[in-house]
Amino acid sequence: MSEQPRVEIYTKEDCPYCENAKDLFDAKGVEYETYNVTGDDELFEEMMERSGGRKTAPEVFIDDELIGGWDDTSALDETGELDEKLGIATDDDEVEHRKLVIAGTGIAGLTAAIYAGRSNNAPLVIEGDEPGGQLTLTTDVANYPGFPEGISGPELVNNMKEQARQFGAELKNGIIETVDASSRPFRIELTNGDVYTADAVIAASGASARTLGIPGEDELMGYGLSTCATCDGAFFRDEDMLVVGGGDAAMEEATFLTKFADTVYIAHRREEFRAEDYWIDRVMEHVEAGDIEIMKNTEVTEIHGSQEAGVDYVTLVENDKGHPTDRLDDPETDEFEFDVGAVFFAIGHTPNTDYLEGTGVQMDEEGYLRTQGGDGGGQTETDVPGIFGAGDVVDFHYQQAVTAAGMGSKAAIDADEYLEDLERAETAEEEEIAAADD
Amino acid sequence: MSEQPRVEIYTKEDCPYCENAKDLFDAKGVEYETYNVTGDDELFEEMMERSGGRKTAPEVFIDDELIGGWDDTSALDETGELDEKLGIATDDDEVEHRKLVIAGTGIAGLTAAIYAGRSNNAPLVIEGDEPGGQLTLTTDVANYPGFPEGISGPELVNNMKEQARQFGAELKNGIIETVDASSRPFRIELTNGDVYTADAVIAASGASARTLGIPGEDELMGYGLSTCATCDGAFFRDEDMLVVGGGDAAMEEATFLTKFADTVYIAHRREEFRAEDYWIDRVMEHVEAGDIEIMKNTEVTEIHGSQEAGVDYVTLVENDKGHPTDRLDDPETDEFEFDVGAVFFAIGHTPNTDYLEGTGVQMDEEGYLRTQGGDGGGQTETDVPGIFGAGDVVDFHYQQAVTAAGMGSKAAIDADEYLEDLERAETAEEEEIAAADD
Repeated sequence: MSEQPRVEIYTKEDCPYCENAKDLFDAKGVEYETYNVTGDDELFEEMMERSGGRKTAPEVFIDDELIGGWDDTSALDETGELDEKLGIATDDDEVEHRKLVIAGTGIAGLTAAIYAGRSNNAPLVIEGDEPGGQLTLTTDVANYPGFPEGISGPELVNNMKEQARQFGAELKNGIIETVDASSRPFRIELTNGDVYTADAVIAASGASARTLGIPGEDELMGYGLSTCATCDGAFFRDEDMLVVGGGDAAMEEATFLTKFADTVYIAHRREEFRAEDYWIDRVMEHVEAGDIEIMKNTEVTEIHGSQEAGVDYVTLVENDKGHPTDRLDDPETDEFEFDVGAVFFAIGHTPNTDYLEGTGVQMDEEGYLRTQGGDGGGQTETDVPGIFGAGDVVDFHYQQAVTAAGMGSKAAIDADEYLEDLERAETAEEEEIAAADD
Repeated sequence: MSEQPRVEIYTKEDCPYCENAKDLFDAKGVEYETYNVTGDDELFEEMMERSGGRKTAPEVFIDDELIGGWDDTSALDETGELDEKLGIATDDDEVEHRKLVIAGTGIAGLTAAIYAGRSNNAPLVIEGDEPGGQLTLTTDVANYPGFPEGISGPELVNNMKEQARQFGAELKNGIIETVDASSRPFRIELTNGDVYTADAVIAASGASARTLGIPGEDELMGYGLSTCATCDGAFFRDEDMLVVGGGDAAMEEATFLTKFADTVYIAHRREEFRAEDYWIDRVMEHVEAGDIEIMKNTEVTEIHGSQEAGVDYVTLVENDKGHPTDRLDDPETDEFEFDVGAVFFAIGHTPNTDYLEGTGVQMDEEGYLRTQGGDGGGQTETDVPGIFGAGDVVDFHYQQAVTAAGMGSKAAIDADEYLEDLERAETAEEEEIAAADD
């Protein structure tokens, strides 16, 4: 057996993606060294130097080779290449059967896992590309019922993981590539080549942060452009920052960023914010204090900068409902340029449902799963018997931690009833065959 | 001002109704003495003597007059007579207006209160006749996501009450008698005579324990017959106990009662239990250990005993699917008598929806509220705009703490959208009038 290569991870405090990276190597039983760059300028310089100027944590190295951040590391894991680099790749073609596979370890998936574990359905829970889901990016969850002092998102997620494991759920890193529903049991292929069969599937794969598809976006993502203020805000201390969006997430991120920014600007393409009053009030307090400035009816059309120097400035345009301001460089086009050191997108999410295409599961035009709904049992059933949906992959409206948890619980109860019916049918069939043999 | 009368409460440990009684007097600002009878035989004898033989806690006395248990005390409060006895009755005919009134302080009502508070809707939450709801009767909640070590029902409820108050919710003892939806705002009358108006109402009034309506039931309720094993189990130590039912609650109560009982018997009118595997497994472990004995296809038809001596024995009958056993006293009638010291009903619940009759809110034949359901917004809307439903008053199927919490959150979000639409419409109307005046 060859010696294990040297794994190094640069981390910082309050960095959920750093936790993801460490969890990934932990799950593989691979040892690694961590360097915490928080408050250590020398180490931060070293990280930037070794990573070719990248300022985001984590940065992962294997035998001195730059792997990159969490996205790069997990992408490499999905293809099986990470295991090859680590010398732990296997040629295991065995197909493992499970009663229940749950896609996703956000609040919905973990609650489903707690309930399914307790119902003796020994669920296999596939983490997906955002282990812990969106709540890992939330610093303080004040409205999850039961915690009057609030609880951090990562802590709540970890509590639920522990609770799920206690009831017999198995959590596994990986990403589901396809679900084949053409015969039963379902055949589930992961991007790393692992294959499982399962009698039932709960889709709790959540939704991922949306981007704008504008020039500069791909190049600067991770170099001053981010979809996670909690993760990356502290890297741009004392700079001006721009938050794009008008919902709860945008307000929450803007409020959070006032801790670090010189001024936080919010660009919102409409006249009215969609956010709940609570968050609008928080933002307005900061507006009065001069920490936040709001630009309504304003859209970002380009982000300028380089991977070396980060974001330099953005191009903004006041749309047709906008009232021209003195910021306009060219009143004809309603365009103006604006200097900022960092840009945070908080413009909603796209449901992660690609792996269900071809199964017959119905989705709406945005890709959200359609479920049975209604008042009685079976609310989480999709159009394919045996496939259930819960959390943000279904819910485009409420999107709260506790609503996701409620749906996860329902999905596990629905799946349990489905599995029990299946078992009864199989037992009856066996008995019939045995009787015919007599 | 007259001196406050002397209030005395006999309590025991782990007694949610005792907490209700204390909370009630606390809320009125009335001082009281408590005597904890747990482990104190002398005090227990004194309580029985003063209460005419009653063995259940709490027992409440005002100036030496026996008021009775929680049911009696809260019944007296509903009519306003309790305040008269305490010398704190007022002749306040003022009608108070609230944006939002929430009926019920179970998990659904409290979660709605947390969310509504955060949305600046300053909800008034009316406790109802079972403050804290059914979860206050549960010793250990293992599957509420976020508490890997489990949490007691009363503790979870208290956490949520504290959280709701922090966000500006006001909790008030009382029972809603009627909601008048014939004009707006809604007019809400409490049984104690208090009247409120409200722009929106969330019905989270839950469901109450069902009884069988058999001879002996009314006389012996509280004297050896109970709907709450957690509350009353310890009073019948070393006796044989009978649990009636076949769902989760029956299994949980039977398991709990093995701590105290000589043998716990479960009488279930069907062949199969409805309970989840987890609970059936727990019960089966106790069956193997000889602590629990199961009587299937068996119904209770009468309970015999007296308020002085408690339950003596029950009459049971094996129904037509039953297999006659050697217990039968009379094979013709399939009837037999059975000695037990206590009987616990765990046979489901009836939704508390009486106060909504005449509003136009649609209910199913059992009285459960019908809501919009579906996948998008407005899932908790009833047929009456401005009245929303959440928790066990709607949900006859899943009935979990976390599903109730999810619905409570949705109801508050739906109500907030309704209230904002209302406010916008009112503002527009005012502007129109102002414009017409110009």
